[in-house]
Amino acid sequence: MTYETIRYDVEEGIATVTLDRPDRLNAFTNGMMEELIDALNRIDADDNVRVAIFTGAGRAFCAGADLSDGPETFVPKDDLVNADGSLNYSSDAARDSGGRVALRIFRCLKPIIGAINGPAVGIGATMTLPMDIRLASDSARIGFVFARRGIVSEAASAWFLPRVVGVSQALEWCTTGRVFDANEARAAGLVRSLHAPDDLLTAAQALAREIADNTAPVSVALMRQMIWRGLGMSNPMEAHRIDSRGILSRGQSRDVAEGLSAFLEKRPARFVDKVSTDMPDYFPWWDEPAYK
Amino acid sequence: MTYETIRYDVEEGIATVTLDRPDRLNAFTNGMMEELIDALNRIDADDNVRVAIFTGAGRAFCAGADLSDGPETFVPKDDLVNADGSLNYSSDAARDSGGRVALRIFRCLKPIIGAINGPAVGIGATMTLPMDIRLASDSARIGFVFARRGIVSEAASAWFLPRVVGVSQALEWCTTGRVFDANEARAAGLVRSLHAPDDLLTAAQALAREIADNTAPVSVALMRQMIWRGLGMSNPMEAHRIDSRGILSRGQSRDVAEGLSAFLEKRPARFVDKVSTDMPDYFPWWDEPAYK
Amino acid sequence: MTYETIRYDVEEGIATVTLDRPDRLNAFTNGMMEELIDALNRIDADDNVRVAIFTGAGRAFCAGADLSDGPETFVPKDDLVNADGSLNYSSDAARDSGGRVALRIFRCLKPIIGAINGPAVGIGATMTLPMDIRLASDSARIGFVFARRGIVSEAASAWFLPRVVGVSQALEWCTTGRVFDANEARAAGLVRSLHAPDDLLTAAQALAREIADNTAPVSVALMRQMIWRGLGMSNPMEAHRIDSRGILSRGQSRDVAEGLSAFLEKRPARFVDKVSTDMPDYFPWWDEPAYK
Repeated sequence: MTYETIRYDVEEGIATVTLDRPDRLNAFTNGMMEELIDALNRIDADDNVRVAIFTGAGRAFCAGADLSDGPETFVPKDDLVNADGSLNYSSDAARDSGGRVALRIFRCLKPIIGAINGPAVGIGATMTLPMDIRLASDSARIGFVFARRGIVSEAASAWFLPRVVGVSQALEWCTTGRVFDANEARAAGLVRSLHAPDDLLTAAQALAREIADNTAPVSVALMRQMIWRGLGMSNPMEAHRIDSRGILSRGQSRDVAEGLSAFLEKRPARFVDKVSTDMPDYFPWWDEPAYK
Repeated sequence: MTYETIRYDVEEGIATVTLDRPDRLNAFTNGMMEELIDALNRIDADDNVRVAIFTGAGRAFCAGADLSDGPETFVPKDDLVNADGSLNYSSDAARDSGGRVALRIFRCLKPIIGAINGPAVGIGATMTLPMDIRLASDSARIGFVFARRGIVSEAASAWFLPRVVGVSQALEWCTTGRVFDANEARAAGLVRSLHAPDDLLTAAQALAREIADNTAPVSVALMRQMIWRGLGMSNPMEAHRIDSRGILSRGQSRDVAEGLSAFLEKRPARFVDKVSTDMPDYFPWWDEPAYK
Repeated sequence: MTYETIRYDVEEGIATVTLDRPDRLNAFTNGMMEELIDALNRIDADDNVRVAIFTGAGRAFCAGADLSDGPETFVPKDDLVNADGSLNYSSDAARDSGGRVALRIFRCLKPIIGAINGPAVGIGATMTLPMDIRLASDSARIGFVFARRGIVSEAASAWFLPRVVGVSQALEWCTTGRVFDANEARAAGLVRSLHAPDDLLTAAQALAREIADNTAPVSVALMRQMIWRGLGMSNPMEAHRIDSRGILSRGQSRDVAEGLSAFLEKRPARFVDKVSTDMPDYFPWWDEPAYK
């Protein structure tokens, strides 16, 4: 796939995905959705990629859905209207495009770092919520502006946002539709840290290096899913079942032998197990629910 | 219904519900429960009400359950004791009165702002937890004091409190039963901001205006429920199904056409869809569980 | 049971459990697991114990799993390998030992305070997560280092950690495997407060006294479980059912009569109901899930 709306680069274990329509403030289109999903597939498939950074070209991260079609933007395609005028909600074609990206990030095997370099509004804000770590330029402005457009929030953000910043903050941002500054985002924990615009990518890369240089890929892939999927578990016994399988199967891996030896010898570890071939037999331990 | 324990006022889209037994520090009674539920029904039914503020008359918000019956306060009514002496837990008459108010707030279609103007203890504290936004006077004192009275927490606060302030803070407050000051409430995120007593209502009204003046009523009603109900969803795919229905149905609404036009024309939007008549056909998307 | 790896002391209603292998930085062994579970059983069974403090002897809290067997530490026992070489995950012997401690703390009837007096790494960190309150020495260092050893997180920490510090912080700590200082722990809410090393136990005891001196044991036991179990409830109606049973049954207890009288008479309450004999008939209201 040749990308027209994003750039994809890999260097020393770090993939960088850059939203790349700077003249449109990187506004989100269906083409961008397809390219982002393709990039996420590449990230998962390439053992040389340990972690990914998502950022925007130019002065914005992503100004939201491309509204160049004006009020027609959200009008449903003909094939989603039934003969009696009702909507065909359960068709796969009815799926919110932002949600398709968010769910793809959710099931990613590598950690994703959002480097919010400027305005992040609507889908520009919500697409960052399933990312593992978010940091921002101190000039970033963020808004869950859906109520001000007469639409509703998307990208499964009603699920992600209260889990990231707490339910009260999620409600205040979504019911006011306010665009807020980087300090408000930081105070609420939406982003972990603020940086001068020129330092943001360096800070994101330092975090990415901390992961890439020190950790076992299979361990990270498992724990990322243990934490995200654990949010939906009603009892810690469910986590205990998965933990026990992990300790038992990883306990006889080459990686743990190397990890313990390296620790005891006070030297860096050289992990060899690969996400492509060495995920344990109990993985995935869940059935991915289908759209309906 | 004529109110004896509360006041209900509507002005420019904002309903204000005032707990109004100042000589009793607005202590909670069964009568107050019924009047609060009636007021919430009016809030939902009146399209002129966009948002509601709950506050207290006089120097307190609500000092807790009215204990003027002394130790008899919590003794069960005769019809809740079975012939063999056991308790008839599943009777509707056995329902905790605070929980009836809390669940009514939970399913409200309009955002609720709690303006905690003074002491808020027991049900005075727990009734604010299903509200969307809480702010407080810097002279407020708050306590989940149940363990100090030999009773247990109510108003479904064991569900709401850890989702608002995190599980560790909820456990510390409930296992100590401590009464704490406004600064401790603010540091824990129980309230979003503190204000001089004379400025509290003005601050609450400014937040209410931010919602009322800028947002589409149907969008706000949907998102309020998407966020609260989303807390109970085990997988973001469940949210994606609801989002997709929302984008598809709202996408052809008059509101979204107006919202996008107003945005592109840089003018205020004039939304026309009403909560009373224009909620989408998939709403509500859940079955409300019954007491049992 | 005679303890070899921990100390157990009870004084004025407070049990203190001290991890006691200071020459090994209190490293965790299977023996320690069994002794900790035994101590927790004693805490629950002894009505004279109102609250427990867990801390470490010497300069560490717990440096993690004892690695004195080197890379053999996690190699599965023979009886966990099936004839075809696959692993017998569902055997009780396959259960992660840290998780067995964590789940025992989770279902404890008394509040547990973690006094993290020094390094807490791996199981040393994760075992504190089901504790109700954590405070730390300002010289403590904490790490969820599993990814740096090639293993995965355990002790059901993928369930507990995001509920204590939020999902983004949990992901950052687990995907980097970083060891961080007390200030980072405090800023994230992993610990409620920091103290000079010599003041830590005094601060923990003051919190314990606040619980022991002011609250009704049965109320505390119920509310601890209401909050922890409430995390798994998908709708506040489930909490309302339990609350209503609690108010109804505790409402006719000796404790609530005493609690209200004492409050109205402005004197300390003397609660008499015991956890060993006076838990209400609807307790426990859940089925404890089994390992499988």
